Amino acid sequence: MKLEVVTIGTELVLGQIIDTNGAELGRALAGAGVEVVRRSSVADRPEMIRAAVAEALERTGFVITTGGLGPTRDDMTKREVAELFGKPLALDAGVLRSLEERFRRLGRPMPTVNRTQAEVPAGATVLPNPRGTAPGLWVEDARGHVVVMLPGVPSEMRGLLAEQVLPRLAARTSGTVVRSRSVRTTGVAESALAERVGTIEESIAPLTLAYLPSTDGVELRVTAWGLGADDADRRLAEVTAQLRERAGDDCYGEDGTDLAAAVLEQLRRRRARLAVAESCTGGLLGARITAVPGASDVFVGGVIAYDDDVKTAALDVPRALVRAHGAVSEEVVLAMAYGAQQRFSANTALAITGIAGPTGGTPEKPVGTVWFAARYGAEARALKRVFPGDRNEIRARSAQASLDLLRRLLLEKP
Amino acid sequence: MKLEVVTIGTELVLGQIIDTNGAELGRALAGAGVEVVRRSSVADRPEMIRAAVAEALERTGFVITTGGLGPTRDDMTKREVAELFGKPLALDAGVLRSLEERFRRLGRPMPTVNRTQAEVPAGATVLPNPRGTAPGLWVEDARGHVVVMLPGVPSEMRGLLAEQVLPRLAARTSGTVVRSRSVRTTGVAESALAERVGTIEESIAPLTLAYLPSTDGVELRVTAWGLGADDADRRLAEVTAQLRERAGDDCYGEDGTDLAAAVLEQLRRRRARLAVAESCTGGLLGARITAVPGASDVFVGGVIAYDDDVKTAALDVPRALVRAHGAVSEEVVLAMAYGAQQRFSANTALAITGIAGPTGGTPEKPVGTVWFAARYGAEARALKRVFPGDRNEIRARSAQASLDLLRRLLLEKP
Repeated sequence: MKLEVVTIGTELVLGQIIDTNGAELGRALAGAGVEVVRRSSVADRPEMIRAAVAEALERTGFVITTGGLGPTRDDMTKREVAELFGKPLALDAGVLRSLEERFRRLGRPMPTVNRTQAEVPAGATVLPNPRGTAPGLWVEDARGHVVVMLPGVPSEMRGLLAEQVLPRLAARTSGTVVRSRSVRTTGVAESALAERVGTIEESIAPLTLAYLPSTDGVELRVTAWGLGADDADRRLAEVTAQLRERAGDDCYGEDGTDLAAAVLEQLRRRRARLAVAESCTGGLLGARITAVPGASDVFVGGVIAYDDDVKTAALDVPRALVRAHGAVSEEVVLAMAYGAQQRFSANTALAITGIAGPTGGTPEKPVGTVWFAARYGAEARALKRVFPGDRNEIRARSAQASLDLLRRLLLEKP
Repeated sequence: MKLEVVTIGTELVLGQIIDTNGAELGRALAGAGVEVVRRSSVADRPEMIRAAVAEALERTGFVITTGGLGPTRDDMTKREVAELFGKPLALDAGVLRSLEERFRRLGRPMPTVNRTQAEVPAGATVLPNPRGTAPGLWVEDARGHVVVMLPGVPSEMRGLLAEQVLPRLAARTSGTVVRSRSVRTTGVAESALAERVGTIEESIAPLTLAYLPSTDGVELRVTAWGLGADDADRRLAEVTAQLRERAGDDCYGEDGTDLAAAVLEQLRRRRARLAVAESCTGGLLGARITAVPGASDVFVGGVIAYDDDVKTAALDVPRALVRAHGAVSEEVVLAMAYGAQQRFSANTALAITGIAGPTGGTPEKPVGTVWFAARYGAEARALKRVFPGDRNEIRARSAQASLDLLRRLLLEKP
């Protein structure tokens, strides 16, 4: 089964907000065996909404929209779709009742504008939305063409999708799925990885392979299209295993694996305790680590040693070391990691010091120069990288590279 | 001037990555007076790429694509656009030379696959890309139809857009602009803000107003469409001033202002020094602060006191206090802020302790309960909030709310 998604909102086409709904729909629908063949975003303008929905409907016969169902003037999706289907809008007593009840519960009078939210195209199925004032609407015509309208607020869209839309779609799908798996690598360039992976694409059809580079590394993503679930899973497992083998030690996990979570899991098994010492990342590494639920089993804490005095006062880095080698040096980063181990009574530590820019670079140490250290017991590793990109990218790559240094050290010391 | 954007990548329609390029293009083009009337995303499939580009070209005559210019087999944008225009691909000696040079500088042999990146459609203008291996391409036919192909890597797309595309577009635009300004608020609910802003929409036409809520707060965004630049700027300034007045102390800045940058600027003027003590945010507040270039003027560093022992060892929070009131309490958060001031010799400090979930909540302190403290000299403020959302949202809201607590304290003590 194929469909198109149309996300509606001036703020989307102007780029003032990022279209997370579109991505979330794609992911959830693919998981249910429904392929989104195109996604379009248009402004809150009647003629544009109508054209985008009509064209998408001609191509696939099934369209999901998000946005434009609110009570304010810039909300016009419902009216345009109703006109497109030639169905008049009429007040729905049930929706009105539940709206009035919602406002009663909140202890506020219902603003008049919200009444328009109780109007639905004749014959539409109302998809109840307990999280907000705009219900979803499922409109279908005699040819079997369907438009499903969902609100733009992400939590409301997500709830309606899971509770109302996916179950209805499950009844319509033919038993095939669109399913992906991926092999995540870091510390290796895309083209180097491509040479190692070679010409695997030719042998995996109808599966497809994509290289997705980001500040986390390069993800190898394999997708099975239009196969039965068991067949897709079997073939994906085979190809994933082949890719994993070719990626070797550069692979740190599969699918949604976060490197921080993978490293924490390794440390958890060893009953290790981790502390961090961060300079140029300023807390980003700690934030990455603590974004993982349950990090507190392993992660003790750390020092954000932004100012050089803090490196001395809170991590016992000898001032003479900083003076002799500079704050961005192998000597200092190793001393930071050692200090973090000692100060936090942790057997494992990571340290980062570098120049994230935009200023502070020199010919010897240009912007992007970052030193990392990992310590596990008495084992220590240090590594220098010179990253491309802006301040944010350099910092993101630094957090990832420091975790990777520890991962590789743990690989050596099983 | 109007155009359409087509972002290409299977990972985009399947929702495996979020389309930040589309948003960034929309923002940058609107700023240059170019309106993106529709944005479409399609998978890495030849027929889909060709159809989406051809249809967009029919509607507006001008299309910008992102993605599909890499060296691997899933990169097929160039071939499809070349065929659509009936122009053969040919090896460009200049591009090949700069590719070879790039690899020489990196000290690596050029993989054979990268040679395909030197092929360009006959007659295309090559847009040099110093940040990566794929140059941008500007293809134009006799009817004046244009397709501009940009790489999908965000930093490369951004660089080419600013350096190559926007200057060329400036020469084509008619003198009207699409321009937005916004008033940023935090610590106030959307509906409460809406009541205060009232019915301003009616009086500001042809400008439009949108409410954009996020974990940072609620942004009030005003957009002027199709006016001359001076007229747009004048009207936007008027409306922005009105909105600012109605938002009062809940407004922390305009347009792209980041709350961390605004607070740092306030502190910089006072020659203050800031330290942080973070528990549930685990470094996120420090990361927010140090994401601001030049933060080192003001920001000293901090402690990630994830484990309760660290609160005592590194911040001198009395163990008895944690035992008596719990780690998530007014008493402990105030002691953390005090400890940060003392340990880092900073006159200003922020502290956060809370329950980000998914586990750890109790009936008295449910998940989302977070205590904040701000100290400026001897002045201290503490605040409790119970945030909705998941672990990430709670942490993001916490970092923002702690900065807002300090902002409001500074407002009281000018």
